[in-house]
Amino acid sequence: MLGRVLNTHQQWLCRQLADAGHAVDRQVAVADTADAIVQAVHEALGRADLVVTTGGLGPTSDDFTRQVIAGLFGLPLAEDPAAAAHIDRWFTDRGRVPPPGVRVQALVPAGATVLPNAHGTAPGLRLATRTTPPRWLVMLPGPPRELRPMFLEQVLPWIGSTFPAPAHSVCRTLRSTGIGESSVQALLSGPLTDLVSAGLEIGYCCRPGEVDIRFMARGAEAARLVAEAETRSRTELGPAVYGIDDDTLEAAVVGLLARRPATLSVAESCTGGLVASRITDVPGASAVFRGGAVVYSNDLKQQLLGVRGETLAAHGAVSEPTAREMAEGARRRLGSDFALALTGIAGPSGETAGKPVGTVFIALATPAATRVEHHLNRYDRGTFKQVASQQALELLRQHLVS
Amino acid sequence: MLGRVLNTHQQWLCRQLADAGHAVDRQVAVADTADAIVQAVHEALGRADLVVTTGGLGPTSDDFTRQVIAGLFGLPLAEDPAAAAHIDRWFTDRGRVPPPGVRVQALVPAGATVLPNAHGTAPGLRLATRTTPPRWLVMLPGPPRELRPMFLEQVLPWIGSTFPAPAHSVCRTLRSTGIGESSVQALLSGPLTDLVSAGLEIGYCCRPGEVDIRFMARGAEAARLVAEAETRSRTELGPAVYGIDDDTLEAAVVGLLARRPATLSVAESCTGGLVASRITDVPGASAVFRGGAVVYSNDLKQQLLGVRGETLAAHGAVSEPTAREMAEGARRRLGSDFALALTGIAGPSGETAGKPVGTVFIALATPAATRVEHHLNRYDRGTFKQVASQQALELLRQHLVS
Repeated sequence: MLGRVLNTHQQWLCRQLADAGHAVDRQVAVADTADAIVQAVHEALGRADLVVTTGGLGPTSDDFTRQVIAGLFGLPLAEDPAAAAHIDRWFTDRGRVPPPGVRVQALVPAGATVLPNAHGTAPGLRLATRTTPPRWLVMLPGPPRELRPMFLEQVLPWIGSTFPAPAHSVCRTLRSTGIGESSVQALLSGPLTDLVSAGLEIGYCCRPGEVDIRFMARGAEAARLVAEAETRSRTELGPAVYGIDDDTLEAAVVGLLARRPATLSVAESCTGGLVASRITDVPGASAVFRGGAVVYSNDLKQQLLGVRGETLAAHGAVSEPTAREMAEGARRRLGSDFALALTGIAGPSGETAGKPVGTVFIALATPAATRVEHHLNRYDRGTFKQVASQQALELLRQHLVS
Repeated sequence: MLGRVLNTHQQWLCRQLADAGHAVDRQVAVADTADAIVQAVHEALGRADLVVTTGGLGPTSDDFTRQVIAGLFGLPLAEDPAAAAHIDRWFTDRGRVPPPGVRVQALVPAGATVLPNAHGTAPGLRLATRTTPPRWLVMLPGPPRELRPMFLEQVLPWIGSTFPAPAHSVCRTLRSTGIGESSVQALLSGPLTDLVSAGLEIGYCCRPGEVDIRFMARGAEAARLVAEAETRSRTELGPAVYGIDDDTLEAAVVGLLARRPATLSVAESCTGGLVASRITDVPGASAVFRGGAVVYSNDLKQQLLGVRGETLAAHGAVSEPTAREMAEGARRRLGSDFALALTGIAGPSGETAGKPVGTVFIALATPAATRVEHHLNRYDRGTFKQVASQQALELLRQHLVS
């Protein structure tokens, strides 16, 4: 509630539950106070069959979810011997003495099921209300690398065996680039009308330069409705659709290069390594990615990439000819079939006459020719880097699919 | 609720409100259905003086927050001429014809105040309940680059003039690395006891390799309590504290280099450009950062950095001697005072005998000597890259502060 931490739990948990067919009704975040936690959990148990809490189970003084929930349920807390032994072992295995107070994490409300934590010290807990039928509360530790395996290995299977199987549902997201949100909907709304009448739900999510189109349906016809929506959308949107679900533009590019097969190198100034980093986020990128040069200084542009001094003097580092020579130099010197180069002004300072902050030249060198695009990305520094890297990857992708 | 989109609104809005001294009581996310939206807004207006909604104001068929809120308040919708003209101009300025249906965004509930959107087509809206005193609902568009300036320029000043000034509050986060969460608390709890008794609130947040310690206090003594807590904590934690609030490790490193002054270059294999990209996220990095080589292939390690073929043959690409030669080669060839080099196995494949996935060698070359660290980061590929880049930046930072 102080805005110091980004909540990634909501997306991850909702995704796991939705993929298993369960409808998530609501997500609530409250302050780290006993009253706020008790009130939110109490309300949630009045609304849902299962309530999942995250965080507040650790060893520090601001971790008191365990205590206030025991109070809400009217249950005494007692140390669980197995949980206490696990905590001791966690530290001794790492050659450390258990710090004072760390064993508070082994306290368990009477009757609760302990969910062992293979990746940390705080176990999770599962409790049932005394109502008929019972409602359930599952408490998970906050760190994602502890929460995620615990949820997948211990909670999701238990949900499957405890609650009635949900209506079959199918969800698919098409990821597109280069067409605006309104235009995407204008292209799709006519062709999908009958599917929407039959129960297809459509959602749109747009980011700079990208639109996701999400299809969802439930019941016996779900798979057919979603598949038909995907087919018709691909017909309307053509190569603007670069992938589905969790596909990324960089994964699409790596996949296209691997199919040829062909290799890539990059030369980056303003994006400072982000294009290379995105490409190497893709498992298996090493089969197609040769490497990159991050050339923040003019002399490195000359030394590593062979950009000519006359070009820099006549046109400046941020120019069409410099981008062209960077890409051609990277392709030649790093020995790849394709090369991308970016030079621009990420800001906040660096504006020069005729070249405002946000200016970027993006070059693609291929075996046949070099093409240079000019964009003006008027964003903060981080968004500028993200959008410019997106434009570079899309420039290459369009070449590879054309 | 389907887990397809990360919610960044909560952190950003809570941060702005907390920094202005306002307490945020609760954050709620619900499904894109009329019932869920109406119920959540109705409940929230029963609990808070001000409710802020985000999203659902756009032009597509899943955007109906405007309509259901008008229904909840019993207000008719009518097109606002200025908002409609803005939408038309938005498209004609960009050489496009307004797509069908886009003018739905100009519909305004009777009596609502229109918040113009300088960065998109959907205006925000402000409404009061008919109670005494009124409670307020502010509706903002979902895209962050539209929501954020609208909130800062039109909502926050209005909050300041509409609601009583809140109790003065002070918040400060210390960012630390290299000490675990329990150990940080064990070091701090004694020295801070009297400050906690006087009203200081302490929160901890840990990520792999990092612990944030957050201090918060309200009232006349707030600034003194927080400043005293910071001073004592810095005494206990020493150089483990690398910054405050939104400081990043990369910004700390760039600042330390600029103060010497000294320059840096990087040579990356397994992190694929991420270290360079993080450094160039810092405005002004060009004053200290020379550039980098992303060398995914063995021949580029030799060609760009001068790593010897014998070294690669005898020890392999992922080895202490290769990391050393990469760093020394980057320092020499890219012409910097310091150089960082990383070579490792990000996974999921690539494991070799004696070198499991997660292995990384990190070298720091200085004018005097080269030091190499070995870590085993058993994480997914993305977290491996993040943690290894963190370890490299920390290796350099510890050298610069020692």
